[in-house]
Amino acid sequence: MSKQMIFTEIKKGYAILNIKRDPVNSMNLALWQALSSEVKKLEADQSIRAVIFNSALERPIFTAGNDIMELYAPKTNLERFQSFWKVQNQFLASLYNSRLTTVAAINGACPAGGTCLSLVCDYRIATPDVSMGLNEVALGLTVPEYWMKLLVKVVGQTYAEKIILFAQMVNGKKALEINLIDRLVESREALLPAAEETVKQLLKTPDSGRVICKNILREPLAKEWGDESRLAAESAQSWKLLSSPSTVKSLDGVFARLSKPKL
Amino acid sequence: MSKQMIFTEIKKGYAILNIKRDPVNSMNLALWQALSSEVKKLEADQSIRAVIFNSALERPIFTAGNDIMELYAPKTNLERFQSFWKVQNQFLASLYNSRLTTVAAINGACPAGGTCLSLVCDYRIATPDVSMGLNEVALGLTVPEYWMKLLVKVVGQTYAEKIILFAQMVNGKKALEINLIDRLVESREALLPAAEETVKQLLKTPDSGRVICKNILREPLAKEWGDESRLAAESAQSWKLLSSPSTVKSLDGVFARLSKPKL
Amino acid sequence: MSKQMIFTEIKKGYAILNIKRDPVNSMNLALWQALSSEVKKLEADQSIRAVIFNSALERPIFTAGNDIMELYAPKTNLERFQSFWKVQNQFLASLYNSRLTTVAAINGACPAGGTCLSLVCDYRIATPDVSMGLNEVALGLTVPEYWMKLLVKVVGQTYAEKIILFAQMVNGKKALEINLIDRLVESREALLPAAEETVKQLLKTPDSGRVICKNILREPLAKEWGDESRLAAESAQSWKLLSSPSTVKSLDGVFARLSKPKL
Repeated sequence: MSKQMIFTEIKKGYAILNIKRDPVNSMNLALWQALSSEVKKLEADQSIRAVIFNSALERPIFTAGNDIMELYAPKTNLERFQSFWKVQNQFLASLYNSRLTTVAAINGACPAGGTCLSLVCDYRIATPDVSMGLNEVALGLTVPEYWMKLLVKVVGQTYAEKIILFAQMVNGKKALEINLIDRLVESREALLPAAEETVKQLLKTPDSGRVICKNILREPLAKEWGDESRLAAESAQSWKLLSSPSTVKSLDGVFARLSKPKL
Repeated sequence: MSKQMIFTEIKKGYAILNIKRDPVNSMNLALWQALSSEVKKLEADQSIRAVIFNSALERPIFTAGNDIMELYAPKTNLERFQSFWKVQNQFLASLYNSRLTTVAAINGACPAGGTCLSLVCDYRIATPDVSMGLNEVALGLTVPEYWMKLLVKVVGQTYAEKIILFAQMVNGKKALEINLIDRLVESREALLPAAEETVKQLLKTPDSGRVICKNILREPLAKEWGDESRLAAESAQSWKLLSSPSTVKSLDGVFARLSKPKL
Repeated sequence: MSKQMIFTEIKKGYAILNIKRDPVNSMNLALWQALSSEVKKLEADQSIRAVIFNSALERPIFTAGNDIMELYAPKTNLERFQSFWKVQNQFLASLYNSRLTTVAAINGACPAGGTCLSLVCDYRIATPDVSMGLNEVALGLTVPEYWMKLLVKVVGQTYAEKIILFAQMVNGKKALEINLIDRLVESREALLPAAEETVKQLLKTPDSGRVICKNILREPLAKEWGDESRLAAESAQSWKLLSSPSTVKSLDGVFARLSKPKL
């Protein structure tokens, strides 16, 4: 089943990891598990030095973020939610400090979990129609603490607070201006070629020193983020909000909008 | 007496807190106390979701910062200074993590304490003739540690150090460029309408998730900043500098300038 | 011997510290020792309030960074390397928190150690042909932890990671854009006059408050950075990488390039 969601192309020294879970690449437990095991496989292969994350959907969507079914209390339960939370956050924390050089090739919609996946990468390239942010507040939800810390590192406290507290979404031009992305390409067609060109450029320097430097820069945050008991406490806390009547009602509204034709 | 310094207008879901202490809104113990009790009252009113800080002076002055009489050793004493220090810093630290969405509508002069009041807000709007900074060093004084930490968060280490170490004041255009403000309006007349429009925009998202996120982002700094024993030690240390002959002489010079006609 | 490498001009209230170690101001143990003792002398002289670091080479080179002979295991040994590491890093950490106002006048090449020397200064002025970065990764080496932390403070995490992990060098225009320098001048001839003008401007405010503020802002990092046992552990760790066959081979390649005519 994982194979249906992810397929990887191996190139010379790097891999392109394509995500395809119709219709919008929403990330459920199975998709996070598939991502996690695929990246572990690539990390174990010493011929692979870098990975590009790419959406294989035809629509302009990198990923719609977490699958709302995983957050909607009537359709899940505390135990499953805690497992979901742990797999997702330990994958993201581990990828943040991967020995691989990581590039996100972002086209179109990229809210919440999609933005966080891109934030843990070393380099972000996007199309002008991109829409990025950690917009959980718009649904009455909270942004996970370490997702916020990461956004603060990448764009600074001032922009991070605007994005988080007021659920502001950012387009490609603005994302480049505030360092949320590193490079803007003009079209979807130009995206993957630009990502591959970037990877080749970045890999011109040897891995030995870089991997050590990356670890010094990133291990402290990655370790705290992925800590098992911290995640268990955090997900128990989040569950209280998710199972409250007001949140359930807010997500009911999301489902109603999603079920309308012509979304 | 507080009522003479502050008057609040209640709007639909938010309040406008007007400051008016002639001639320049200099902030003495009574004004900080009035601000503190007014904000507590607004926070206790669940119909109020946001507050705008505004100067009701006719002159182009948001506030001139701390009243120099509170810092001038010959006219105060250690006990009063420590009380002043505590009230001011606990108010600012608490406002930094308020459940209210906070907007500063800054016109004209806004040195030191005025800038710090705006820095603890969620959003800063200003006129082009604004003059902001933490310019205590120009008087031979020090900037309080947590005021510096906050400025570093908002504009980054590089600009914060220039502003602090060399007492550089920043105008509206530059303030926008370095993220010291979030929005620039063209005139005093446009300021309050823009602040109200911003508040209405920001309040489109629900409070539930935002208040939790704000608390996660800001509570650590707010808690350290407002810690009673830390403040007592800090004010004792500051008093040494304030009561030194060289500082008293430097403030004598300020009084001489202030007493000149045509200030 | 130190006198041949460094000569200082005393001006009214400040000093210009000229570095001249032909051919490229590469920094060996003796040069770091000379810098350290010269700055201590200036700090002890209460008539001196600021220092400008300047290259006295004719070529467009601020400094080529650490002398590769100090890093090349076949020509040094663990004991000498540890001494080199300690002298260099304790000098830099101490200068970072100097009571003196410090300005770097950077012309031309300024890799690695040259960039770090400029990063500990309060103000950086450069020519357009400047080339700055912490490019150790290009040689398979690592950037010292506190050099990275300092770069993160100055330019933010996003640019710092690009510079460090991918050994990116930055020219004058880009350096100004990302706050790696504070002022760009148009030519070598304009550099030192601009640095002197800047110093005079910065010294218009009194030292008393500034020195305390600088200490509050910088002492925590400076103290950790210069800690003797931390440095001993770090240099032992670095020595493992430096004495590995792959690093020795990589530095052999550097020597081969350096020995070519027309470098």
